[in-house]
Amino acid sequence: MPRFPRIAESAQGVKGSVYSGLKKKPASGKPPVPLHIGDTWMEPAEGCRMQDLTVEDHPGMHRYSPVPGYPQLRDRIAEVHGERTGIETERGQVVVTGGATAGLAAVVGALVSPGEEVLLVAPYWPLIAGSVRAFGATPVDVPMMTEVETAEAAVERLEQYRTDKTVAVYWNTPHNPTGRLLPRDWLEAMSQWARKNDLWIFSDDVYEDYVYEGEHAYTRTVSPDNTISVHSFSKAYGMAGNRCGYLAGPNEAIDAVKRIMTNINYSACSASQLAALNALNGAADEWVANAREKYAQLGREAAEALGLPGPKGSTFLFPDVSHALDERGLDGFLGDLAEAGVLVAPGPSFGPYNQHVRMCFTAAPPDEIRRGVDILASKIQR
Amino acid sequence: MPRFPRIAESAQGVKGSVYSGLKKKPASGKPPVPLHIGDTWMEPAEGCRMQDLTVEDHPGMHRYSPVPGYPQLRDRIAEVHGERTGIETERGQVVVTGGATAGLAAVVGALVSPGEEVLLVAPYWPLIAGSVRAFGATPVDVPMMTEVETAEAAVERLEQYRTDKTVAVYWNTPHNPTGRLLPRDWLEAMSQWARKNDLWIFSDDVYEDYVYEGEHAYTRTVSPDNTISVHSFSKAYGMAGNRCGYLAGPNEAIDAVKRIMTNINYSACSASQLAALNALNGAADEWVANAREKYAQLGREAAEALGLPGPKGSTFLFPDVSHALDERGLDGFLGDLAEAGVLVAPGPSFGPYNQHVRMCFTAAPPDEIRRGVDILASKIQR
Repeated sequence: MPRFPRIAESAQGVKGSVYSGLKKKPASGKPPVPLHIGDTWMEPAEGCRMQDLTVEDHPGMHRYSPVPGYPQLRDRIAEVHGERTGIETERGQVVVTGGATAGLAAVVGALVSPGEEVLLVAPYWPLIAGSVRAFGATPVDVPMMTEVETAEAAVERLEQYRTDKTVAVYWNTPHNPTGRLLPRDWLEAMSQWARKNDLWIFSDDVYEDYVYEGEHAYTRTVSPDNTISVHSFSKAYGMAGNRCGYLAGPNEAIDAVKRIMTNINYSACSASQLAALNALNGAADEWVANAREKYAQLGREAAEALGLPGPKGSTFLFPDVSHALDERGLDGFLGDLAEAGVLVAPGPSFGPYNQHVRMCFTAAPPDEIRRGVDILASKIQR
Repeated sequence: MPRFPRIAESAQGVKGSVYSGLKKKPASGKPPVPLHIGDTWMEPAEGCRMQDLTVEDHPGMHRYSPVPGYPQLRDRIAEVHGERTGIETERGQVVVTGGATAGLAAVVGALVSPGEEVLLVAPYWPLIAGSVRAFGATPVDVPMMTEVETAEAAVERLEQYRTDKTVAVYWNTPHNPTGRLLPRDWLEAMSQWARKNDLWIFSDDVYEDYVYEGEHAYTRTVSPDNTISVHSFSKAYGMAGNRCGYLAGPNEAIDAVKRIMTNINYSACSASQLAALNALNGAADEWVANAREKYAQLGREAAEALGLPGPKGSTFLFPDVSHALDERGLDGFLGDLAEAGVLVAPGPSFGPYNQHVRMCFTAAPPDEIRRGVDILASKIQR
């Protein structure tokens, strides 16, 4: 049992860098176009940058904040989230987290025991699988988002993978990686099924601000009792490096999450919280509107070039590249693409998808994205 | 097994706020003197504040950094840590973390499986117990730091608590909460014992810059193969709110830690890393020397007032208050103290110490600390 120099068994199945691992360099010698990672090329809005936060205005801003976040930020989040979801929300139902990643880890730590199972609506945001594994539990892929088209079929799929060890289900919308939205009737059916089976729902809404067609529906709106709603300032405001997000959910669950978070994370960065508060108070409104317009345009162009329907939300497309694969499979395709100067994320990071890749259309300036998409499109064409 | 609305069994024993919980308010109506939390009253050095970091100087500074930290920061850490420990250290043996708390959580996730045991040299930094519990493992208190006086006795104590489920041992020096240093001969004996029993060592050195008497010895210096060395910019540079620290250790263990960290935390705040780099590059040298002098003076004064030997390091004292307790026990004492205007941390947060309290002598400006210490001293006097 004592085991230096070995690592924990529970850590052995956990992947690190899920996005790359490619050693091939572009033949041109130029830096590759980074379509593989989800970020933005834009600097955050003025008023929301670190240089805008001074110790003169905010004495003690480099000291610890309260673990669940500054009270004024939690209150503002409760107000905004309450308006958006239509679910009246109070400070005690909100906790500020060190990004959505740290938030979800605290949720897993608080609500899932070792040996239990969490269903993942697939394809999914890759880190959730590693997070569940890190706590000794088992992620279970439920392929749905490229497979089924109705709420009924979605529930059937979920039920097919449920066991007596299942304690929670994770989904995200607007959807990373397909750019779809989970329609409200799906959320209603899936939530009802979860409620009936006493399952927690981890609803990852980090792309809520980036919807280009249709309307984002919040899981917390349709099922507030058993939903932990996961949010981020990273995607909304171009602050991914600030590591700040939040959770909203029932008081008792949020209390447990706060206790876990205290011990494995403590709190989000104090300055990042002040930046988030400025953004929520209006300093970034214009920035978001502008970003949304630009992202929508880039997403439509990329989809058209790749022969896909335009994304309804998020900042991703998930093309099926099966007809471009040869006997070397996806690795060969990714290698060729890297040599041609473009990085994309391999489908298997998102579930059982060894004939898909994910591309982000916002991580580099528009002209670079267009260049990368053209190269990708030329490789996908039969 | 499915359990909404219940929380995880592994989360049930995890404490949240370990430092307070007191509802009593000071009778004076003035804010209480916060001797309960470990922080500093000083703003960080100029050049190391968020306002000193601009997008003009650091384009993309609000975007994701690489998961293990900016390469230039890791290289600088490797250099500084290598010089301090005498162990040549390379970039791959260093990972930047979202504070020491997040770093230790990733270490536990990477090296400890559910059901295993971690020995904690007690009294200890409270969050390590919750972190071990959060991953489904068991923290085991080993009372030593107020109980034994020799390296031999220390090893005997550790051996007494070792079982076939023990996989690691945690200690911290300069010591939170007693202000002691673990002498080099203790570290050698304890490390040798750990190595013989194939145990990982989690050595928490976050107060390495605050030594007032004697010399800090690094566990990694005496046992580099099985030690993960835990560090923080919080304590050194008055940046606790920035949530940035680092780990150093053997490549294979650091690789596993990075993989866990990717999934439960992603990375430290990008701007916080830039601030840390400025500090390590000399911008905070004068600040640290000045802080050390001030802290040393405050520590000596507090110890004298409380009838204790002066702290050799850290920013804490851990007085035994048994002779001041009445039939209400420690809770009664803490309540009286709060009414008198002073908050301290209860001993039981640090292990089996229900007749001790911890006080920090750096969390408020010197005059306020002195006022708090006087009140505490008057309550402790028989």
